Amino acid sequence: MPKIQGLFDAARSAEIVNERMSPQADPRLREIMGVVVRHLHAAIREASITTEEWMAGITFLTETGQTCTDWRQEFILLSDTLGVSMLVDAINHDRPESATDNTVLGPFYVPQSPHYANGADIALDGKGEPVLVEGRVTDGEGNPVAGASIEVWQANEDGFYDVQQKGIQPEWNLRGQFTSEADGAYSFRSVKPRHYAIPHDGPVGRMLEALGRGPVRPAHMHFIVMAPGFDTVTTHIFTPDCPYLSQDPVFGVKESLIADFKVIDDADRAAKASISNPFQAVRVNFELVRTS
Amino acid sequence: MPKIQGLFDAARSAEIVNERMSPQADPRLREIMGVVVRHLHAAIREASITTEEWMAGITFLTETGQTCTDWRQEFILLSDTLGVSMLVDAINHDRPESATDNTVLGPFYVPQSPHYANGADIALDGKGEPVLVEGRVTDGEGNPVAGASIEVWQANEDGFYDVQQKGIQPEWNLRGQFTSEADGAYSFRSVKPRHYAIPHDGPVGRMLEALGRGPVRPAHMHFIVMAPGFDTVTTHIFTPDCPYLSQDPVFGVKESLIADFKVIDDADRAAKASISNPFQAVRVNFELVRTS
Repeated sequence: MPKIQGLFDAARSAEIVNERMSPQADPRLREIMGVVVRHLHAAIREASITTEEWMAGITFLTETGQTCTDWRQEFILLSDTLGVSMLVDAINHDRPESATDNTVLGPFYVPQSPHYANGADIALDGKGEPVLVEGRVTDGEGNPVAGASIEVWQANEDGFYDVQQKGIQPEWNLRGQFTSEADGAYSFRSVKPRHYAIPHDGPVGRMLEALGRGPVRPAHMHFIVMAPGFDTVTTHIFTPDCPYLSQDPVFGVKESLIADFKVIDDADRAAKASISNPFQAVRVNFELVRTS
Repeated sequence: MPKIQGLFDAARSAEIVNERMSPQADPRLREIMGVVVRHLHAAIREASITTEEWMAGITFLTETGQTCTDWRQEFILLSDTLGVSMLVDAINHDRPESATDNTVLGPFYVPQSPHYANGADIALDGKGEPVLVEGRVTDGEGNPVAGASIEVWQANEDGFYDVQQKGIQPEWNLRGQFTSEADGAYSFRSVKPRHYAIPHDGPVGRMLEALGRGPVRPAHMHFIVMAPGFDTVTTHIFTPDCPYLSQDPVFGVKESLIADFKVIDDADRAAKASISNPFQAVRVNFELVRTS
């Protein structure tokens, strides 16, 4: 019988698979698949994966997909907890040192949150320790960026986002979009963020537990800042006193993102901001990078 | 502010992630995760994955998980089409050359199919080109293995398994379990297998199409052969004249698994086997390896 071409050969398994791709396939897809298949086969070979371990992997990935819902993205959580999300961000954003750093988006972002005037309070349920957030959006030379969109979202003082507690928290609680003024300034009122556990009742939670890793994220607020002509920044601020700063399960903490929360005793400022005196305040400035 | 330990560092991202694993975690799990995280990060870096490509990957994996049902395992199909299933089999089964080769299980195996006496017909709908399958189960020295279980399943002449056509095909059509006699012999009647497309209306089908790879598996019958004291063999036989032999999307073809289908004109044998003369026949012998 004549030799049949393209049959599996364990010694060059990744090449056999990659040689099946059509020369007419999209070159970028060919490139990515080539790399993925090569590393996938190398990992299986290097770890000498058994049939039972392979099946456990199949089951894990299946359950991860089936845990995803309209408001929960377990594969993003997996990517986050394996440091992949931070790596993808790092290789795609080579920012000047002074520019605001990116960090993970996280699984609780919801687009189209309400637009508010500067100074508005996003804590719709009136719970938590009030905090005044103020800052400016600038370019790399310190010039104000007017009309920038500053989108914010955070968990409440119990450590849950509104979408995790539908019917318990008001819709859009602790979420909103603000627009920078002519001088680049923006401000809003919220509550001091608190550490919380990422959703850990699913496959990713079980993985973390098996690895002896905790699920608790250090206290943070999320931001997406965008303006025409500038790279969009997806970031957090962290509270400096959180005991979980060095254990973030999604590797989102950067030194540059640890904010300085201050207690301010200033009756005039408090009255102007419609907040009770004394109050906590944090300055959060965003330095954007022009789109190249 | 004192330096915080364990923060993300793009230059050594995989190490940062792996250093988070507890020394108390299961050593084998630590080993596997260490290898997986290292290759995952290396692949992302090497292919310079963009944020959009990362999101496309998240969506692909999510859809793959959500395409899985009680009778369809899209992640196994993905593993099969990327040559991973064959690789895992190869590194776990270092068999003597004369022993029966393994190949992929495939997504359509259903446990607990009916037990039949040797010679029974598994084509419950009477469709297709009849074929007599006969063979022996032996050990490495050619001694008969009595009481071995020979489990068989295949698609019908339209290229569908019973579980893909519930209500159209009879339940358990073209599936059954046989037991080898004292001399190691077994036999059954079925129909000649035909090539068919793997399920390609899901994420894996879209992937194959984008890669310019076809979904058609060459014609085959599936077998699982097991006996106490021997390694279980999961395998196929392929028809030698199938035009798709060199393009199996799951890389299951091995030269040793291409069977010799013969047309037999023998009225006595036909009558004995309750098959019309002339008829097609194929000998399928299984040489098992003792459990080490």
